[in-house]
Amino acid sequence: MSVTSIKVVGVGLIGTSLGLALARKDIVANLSDKSKVNLDLAITYGAGKNLDEEPELVVVCVPPTYTAQVVIEQLNQHPNALVTDVASVKSNILAQVIAGSPEQAARYLGSHPMAGREASGPIGARADIFFARPWVITPHDGTAQKHIDTLRHLAMQLDALPVVMSPVEHDQAVALVSHLPQLVSSALAARLVDGSKEMLNLSGQGLRDTTRIAASDPQMWLQILSQNDQKIKPLLSSLIEDLKQLEASFENLADQDSLAVIQDLMARGNSGVESIPGKHGGKYFEYEVVTALIDDSPGALASLLVFVGEIGVNLEDISLEHSPGAPIGIVEMQVLPEVATKLAEALTENGWRLA
Amino acid sequence: MSVTSIKVVGVGLIGTSLGLALARKDIVANLSDKSKVNLDLAITYGAGKNLDEEPELVVVCVPPTYTAQVVIEQLNQHPNALVTDVASVKSNILAQVIAGSPEQAARYLGSHPMAGREASGPIGARADIFFARPWVITPHDGTAQKHIDTLRHLAMQLDALPVVMSPVEHDQAVALVSHLPQLVSSALAARLVDGSKEMLNLSGQGLRDTTRIAASDPQMWLQILSQNDQKIKPLLSSLIEDLKQLEASFENLADQDSLAVIQDLMARGNSGVESIPGKHGGKYFEYEVVTALIDDSPGALASLLVFVGEIGVNLEDISLEHSPGAPIGIVEMQVLPEVATKLAEALTENGWRLA
Repeated sequence: MSVTSIKVVGVGLIGTSLGLALARKDIVANLSDKSKVNLDLAITYGAGKNLDEEPELVVVCVPPTYTAQVVIEQLNQHPNALVTDVASVKSNILAQVIAGSPEQAARYLGSHPMAGREASGPIGARADIFFARPWVITPHDGTAQKHIDTLRHLAMQLDALPVVMSPVEHDQAVALVSHLPQLVSSALAARLVDGSKEMLNLSGQGLRDTTRIAASDPQMWLQILSQNDQKIKPLLSSLIEDLKQLEASFENLADQDSLAVIQDLMARGNSGVESIPGKHGGKYFEYEVVTALIDDSPGALASLLVFVGEIGVNLEDISLEHSPGAPIGIVEMQVLPEVATKLAEALTENGWRLA
Repeated sequence: MSVTSIKVVGVGLIGTSLGLALARKDIVANLSDKSKVNLDLAITYGAGKNLDEEPELVVVCVPPTYTAQVVIEQLNQHPNALVTDVASVKSNILAQVIAGSPEQAARYLGSHPMAGREASGPIGARADIFFARPWVITPHDGTAQKHIDTLRHLAMQLDALPVVMSPVEHDQAVALVSHLPQLVSSALAARLVDGSKEMLNLSGQGLRDTTRIAASDPQMWLQILSQNDQKIKPLLSSLIEDLKQLEASFENLADQDSLAVIQDLMARGNSGVESIPGKHGGKYFEYEVVTALIDDSPGALASLLVFVGEIGVNLEDISLEHSPGAPIGIVEMQVLPEVATKLAEALTENGWRLA
């Protein structure tokens, strides 16, 4: 059930992150990539090695358009291995694999670790991107239970949450929670192109949040969206229907029914937000934040951090905020919970101002 | 120009925050609210007192629907005071004030501090919600320069960034950067109501970000939206037009033109996101990013920043990313464009690794 010989094909963001995560569990991944530069970079990062060994498991981490083809190649190349992939669409890839290699399709079991970052390529890789994230495993009629168990074990080893559902159920779910939000965010952000600089200077956090994912790579998304069009279409149509009702309401606001339409949509939006489980999507570990105030001058941040280093505290993340010309900078330091109190006390005792 | 006798009418989130911010500047706000409970709470919080004094400035902080009416009351009650408000729509309120009290409208000068939190009421109040946020001042034909100066000074006193534009320009801007995103976020979140628990378990940060503001209060938003319908309508129609084109493309993905439509929308989305200034509210400067790689050990970040301090470079913002246990941390340093090259060169010459 537990495999130790794992080949990772494609060392982009997910492949390299997978290698790093395996390295933490003392498993040296066998890395391969058609780009020598990426492969060298991933090896330098410590994500694995380029080994000449026969894998028990192959994880295909290439872009969705090429996934099925590379899966079939790997099934041929390693006739005893289980082959999985990490693409964010599943039905279409399964159909291609079955069509292209029907006699070997039983050894293909699709999966989708729902991990990602805005960064891409090996340089964006992080060992912890799978932490507490769903890792969807999508068996088909020909899948043996032992293969499901193998992937489930891998996901748990990497601190991900294995979820088993059919390829169709998966595609339906991601259309709702990922693909539709992407399209809507892009369409909203596209409106900003007509805004003047003065108008955009009034942007706040609400706009930044709603449009953040609109910065995503169109090429990559075109591959995803075009392989899940059947599931996306009805959702998009329903959304448009709602927006057209809103539009009609704005045409005739004097009418009480119009106000009711707007209020009803917003109330349904309230319910929708409440139905999203948990709040920890982006945060892989629970850190505590210690916030200090510093002068806005060169060296002020450094002397704070020298002090933090001297007391042996490792910062997991840091953010600095100040507005140009304002006299004070705000430093938010994220640390492991067990050192937060020590840090706060040491800072206070040594004259630092905490917020 | 600087006023010290300030009356705050309505001690909800903004009114109480205003009182707290003034208290930090040693100004005791004169608080009033028709709710005795809220008033007592705001006074207990330290946001001001209920004084019997004649104000130089009245700040009306009541919900948008009542704003014009309360502004007129205050103009009548305090015949020498400048009266402003904080509502997030401006043209409509100005028109109502002029219609209701034409001879006194010169003493009304609308404003909109673009501050807020998801929390509401006095209990959600924070002294720093105005910090580095735009505070829009919207003069009309009858506005004296001294009144603009008074509000500009108030905004700066509270560490906000005063911005002067006409009521119409303001309403156009917030329709784009605030009201349309609200409607879109609500419509997207409303789709989730049809999702099963299993589907929603796959939710990630992208969905959370795009739908966060859909948790907003429908009643409050109905007041805002219904007073800015003329500016919202054309934006909503354009958005729907884009989504309908997407929908048509999904009907016929085999056609290259269809793929081009999707890709074009996403590319426009990319441009739109890039046009949002800064990362922080109210950042009017364009920074450049210098990215360095450091060991993931205590003190590594500090020694980098000591070096940066020694060469006299001030960091405007910094972010550190690494996963616990990974061998490398990535430090993104935002600096003024004129020092970016100097910083990058100095780092490279002294053996730091840039990404």
